Amino acid sequence: MSRLFAILMAGGSGTRFWPASRRSRPKQLLPLGGDLPLLAATSRRLSPIVPGSRQVVITNLEYVDAVREMLPEVPPEQVVGEPEGRDTAPAIGLAARLVERLDADAICVAMPSDHVIRPEGLFREHLLAAELALEAHPASVLVFGIEPDHPATGYGYLRRGAAVGEYAGRAVHRLEAFVEKPDRATAESLLRQGDHSWNAGLFAFRPAALAAAYERLLPEMASALAGLAEAWGRDDFEARMAAVFPTLRRISIDYGVMEHLDDALVLPLPVEWDDVGSWTALRRLLEADERGNVVEGEALLLGSSGCVVSARGGLVALRGVDDLIVVHTPDATLVCRRDDDQGVKDLVEALRAKGLLSYL
Amino acid sequence: MSRLFAILMAGGSGTRFWPASRRSRPKQLLPLGGDLPLLAATSRRLSPIVPGSRQVVITNLEYVDAVREMLPEVPPEQVVGEPEGRDTAPAIGLAARLVERLDADAICVAMPSDHVIRPEGLFREHLLAAELALEAHPASVLVFGIEPDHPATGYGYLRRGAAVGEYAGRAVHRLEAFVEKPDRATAESLLRQGDHSWNAGLFAFRPAALAAAYERLLPEMASALAGLAEAWGRDDFEARMAAVFPTLRRISIDYGVMEHLDDALVLPLPVEWDDVGSWTALRRLLEADERGNVVEGEALLLGSSGCVVSARGGLVALRGVDDLIVVHTPDATLVCRRDDDQGVKDLVEALRAKGLLSYL
Repeated sequence: MSRLFAILMAGGSGTRFWPASRRSRPKQLLPLGGDLPLLAATSRRLSPIVPGSRQVVITNLEYVDAVREMLPEVPPEQVVGEPEGRDTAPAIGLAARLVERLDADAICVAMPSDHVIRPEGLFREHLLAAELALEAHPASVLVFGIEPDHPATGYGYLRRGAAVGEYAGRAVHRLEAFVEKPDRATAESLLRQGDHSWNAGLFAFRPAALAAAYERLLPEMASALAGLAEAWGRDDFEARMAAVFPTLRRISIDYGVMEHLDDALVLPLPVEWDDVGSWTALRRLLEADERGNVVEGEALLLGSSGCVVSARGGLVALRGVDDLIVVHTPDATLVCRRDDDQGVKDLVEALRAKGLLSYL
Repeated sequence: MSRLFAILMAGGSGTRFWPASRRSRPKQLLPLGGDLPLLAATSRRLSPIVPGSRQVVITNLEYVDAVREMLPEVPPEQVVGEPEGRDTAPAIGLAARLVERLDADAICVAMPSDHVIRPEGLFREHLLAAELALEAHPASVLVFGIEPDHPATGYGYLRRGAAVGEYAGRAVHRLEAFVEKPDRATAESLLRQGDHSWNAGLFAFRPAALAAAYERLLPEMASALAGLAEAWGRDDFEARMAAVFPTLRRISIDYGVMEHLDDALVLPLPVEWDDVGSWTALRRLLEADERGNVVEGEALLLGSSGCVVSARGGLVALRGVDDLIVVHTPDATLVCRRDDDQGVKDLVEALRAKGLLSYL
């Protein structure tokens, strides 16, 4: 019987999916490239081996109600709201403490809730392999490494060292180094070397091992998190969260913890992975028509090619245009070039600067 | 005291302004290029010399309620619904009969309700000149001629002959001939000749003179219209309209009447006129920003030029795109090239063919 628990990180706001994503409806709550909202798909992807009862979700306080409604199989108290985002170290550290309270012998996997991973069966087999690896290496933290298919410059890389063993048929290695987001030439070199994977923010660990690492590397945070975890389930939990959480150091678990460990492991994950980073991701996630257009929602395209179309609560009609991103929502429409990754962020910034806050 | 009455033709459906125009919300009820719906602007443009109490509006039966609400100064019974459009001859012929019942000595101006005419004062001065001309020539029909500023191929032309007199300082001429929509070379030649104006469907006449012309040229229609006008104000008017109107010959007043008159007059109208024929008309009606974009409604444009944007009930955000038409409505968004005049019609046809009727 698996002792796996899952921590789902669901705190982001995702301005890159404006106008579909809004302050009140962040990326992870949207069905991007599929039928289910990304968070619901992440939870369901786990559920055959980690049922909702063993999932803990960390999200923004303002999304707690929406998340509880979206994930009815996760006990409501296991959906925890951050009064303010402090990056991943406080969030994962707290969630690990909560899992420890649920089951002192748990093994945790922690992951973002807004990525797409396929095929799901293969993904789950690797989670079970990670569990076996951590039973053999109880003090280690394991990082999953996505097998790169191109020299991406937008992700950090994981360099693997010697194999430490094979678990459920999957080789697990020493993690030799975290490599910062590389430039193009470095990324090409890493790919040629063949011993690097992408760091996608997927981890596995025993809560006690993670707590020990925090106590050594982030002792103040460790003690604050222990106090918060102790209050969990009491009436004053929310008040303590409101008082304490915003005072925690804002730091990622990579910088704050992972990069300083000398006994971390890496498990290569040979899956199709997408962090759904911008509208153009739909070109990878959806099947294109014969003219290279991808569409989610209702659309009518005449004489148009290479477009990315999202129509929510309405129809998008295109004629004679190429290589555009067109996103319709009832109160706002976006049109930009497909190759203009920065465009949406700049528009959201400009909306903020102009005080058009009702559209954010 | 002026005896002018006005007939406003408000029957069109205007698919070229999809998705702003719909079956239930045709072009003339939309505020295109201004603050007021085109019909309301047409009514208000007249009102200093022809108050609402002396205006008669002919529209589709299904728009009657909306028109009455939009034009509270027009008595409700003077908003008449056609059970089915039969082109302009039946509509203007009926309206002229109704005006005759309101005032046997009336002089009528008849015009489309979905054009833009500026400046308004100059326009009204010419209506008063037409009234004076018709007092001097009571049996004639007068056609207003728009002074062409380019060799348009989309309008019919009016050739003027000798002046018959000057009224309120404006020369009125014999109308020598209607010229069909010309090809480009012919249009250039007409412009060089200097004695041709555009036929914009603006007429002035005494109802008795028009009735006489119908009796001679369209005798069956004349008698049917006389019967309908007699029923106006009675309980059976609507039933008679439903029974009789759809049986009338479908013909324009130009083909059916005007072109056969030998004593018609033409009054050149030196105004800025626009028939608001497609979304690109907004480029003539609205002031462009420094990059040549025109916008109605709320929009945010970054690095974009030459675009035509209409945002109704929401915001349009563009970045890095050029020469597009982008129209947002809450349930549908249109994107096409600015030079693609046919695009909107083709999209509407395709929506119909696909059975996406809720968007029409």
